[in-house]
Amino acid sequence: MDYYSKEISRLIAGLSSLPGIGEKSAQRLAFHILGMPQTEVEQLADTIVSARKNVRYCKVCFNLTDQEVCPICASAKRDRSTIMVVEDTRDLAAYEKTGEYKGLYHVLHGAISPMQGIGPSDIRLKELIARLSDGEVKEVIIATNSSLEGETTAMYISRLIKPIGDVKVTRIASGVPVGGDLEYIDEVTLLRALEGRRDL
Amino acid sequence: MDYYSKEISRLIAGLSSLPGIGEKSAQRLAFHILGMPQTEVEQLADTIVSARKNVRYCKVCFNLTDQEVCPICASAKRDRSTIMVVEDTRDLAAYEKTGEYKGLYHVLHGAISPMQGIGPSDIRLKELIARLSDGEVKEVIIATNSSLEGETTAMYISRLIKPIGDVKVTRIASGVPVGGDLEYIDEVTLLRALEGRRDL
Repeated sequence: MDYYSKEISRLIAGLSSLPGIGEKSAQRLAFHILGMPQTEVEQLADTIVSARKNVRYCKVCFNLTDQEVCPICASAKRDRSTIMVVEDTRDLAAYEKTGEYKGLYHVLHGAISPMQGIGPSDIRLKELIARLSDGEVKEVIIATNSSLEGETTAMYISRLIKPIGDVKVTRIASGVPVGGDLEYIDEVTLLRALEGRRDL
Repeated sequence: MDYYSKEISRLIAGLSSLPGIGEKSAQRLAFHILGMPQTEVEQLADTIVSARKNVRYCKVCFNLTDQEVCPICASAKRDRSTIMVVEDTRDLAAYEKTGEYKGLYHVLHGAISPMQGIGPSDIRLKELIARLSDGEVKEVIIATNSSLEGETTAMYISRLIKPIGDVKVTRIASGVPVGGDLEYIDEVTLLRALEGRRDL
């Protein structure tokens, strides 16, 4: 890429190292950045560095936060008897956007995957079990993805918690997405939806 | 977006202000950045700031560069008798990628557009004319986009240069699809257009 000067090539290379940004998008972003006022560029760079520096895991639920304890765990309005277990922070955000769930969360930061060498001790499972010890939690809702890894993790967690007694373990329903067209939905999902049918 | 902490929301907002990056991509980028080693994040931020600070216009052709004069204008291997006029640096890069064009460039940084109130004095036209005064340049190839603005600009430039005499004015062939943007066109088409250039 010697048709760009070194600084520009370096900027394009840096941007295209980010996920989902190919050569063309990196180029467009680079030229956009070169056209932005310098103070704005510095602000953007500051935001990036400061976020990376100040964001850490909530020491209760392992959500990403810039405080010791995340706003959800710190809130007096949340129902402390329910914990929803998710694979990562984006899944938590997805449920928060619904605005309906009022309990707490626990972010595993991964799922058990023997194929990728990720075992139960590589995700935040120990910490989840520790949160159940004071008897305040009545229900653990497992909301891991409905992939092979997510299902394996769900099974593993349920076996781990069941012996504790007093804590109900549930799994979010899997089936046909709302607005989904049956015709385009895979067979496994269709069967899952059938198995999970409920009385009307 | 109070389901993310302030630092994360700020990062997502900053990223989604870039062109072509929506809320979802910004979120994915943000979480990727939060998972990168801190030194790498600092390096990326440095690259961005330093590029913006050090990149300026080549004083000859107005290409973006981190030197006084861009590598193309400074190269002894380029044919100084030909100048290709393009609308912006990305168009220059597109022709450089073909590896076939050996002349110099002139980057206008825009095109004449009465609709948007961009007149001949708002683009680097004066500077182009000045480059023709020493008699070294024998041909000016107009490679503005094949849009309304690009064609208008091409006509304007040709009328401006013709009276100078001794300088041939050509236009890249319209092998380039009408309404197309040079930046996104494949190299074969770009070369075809270069070969088929005609007198204006």
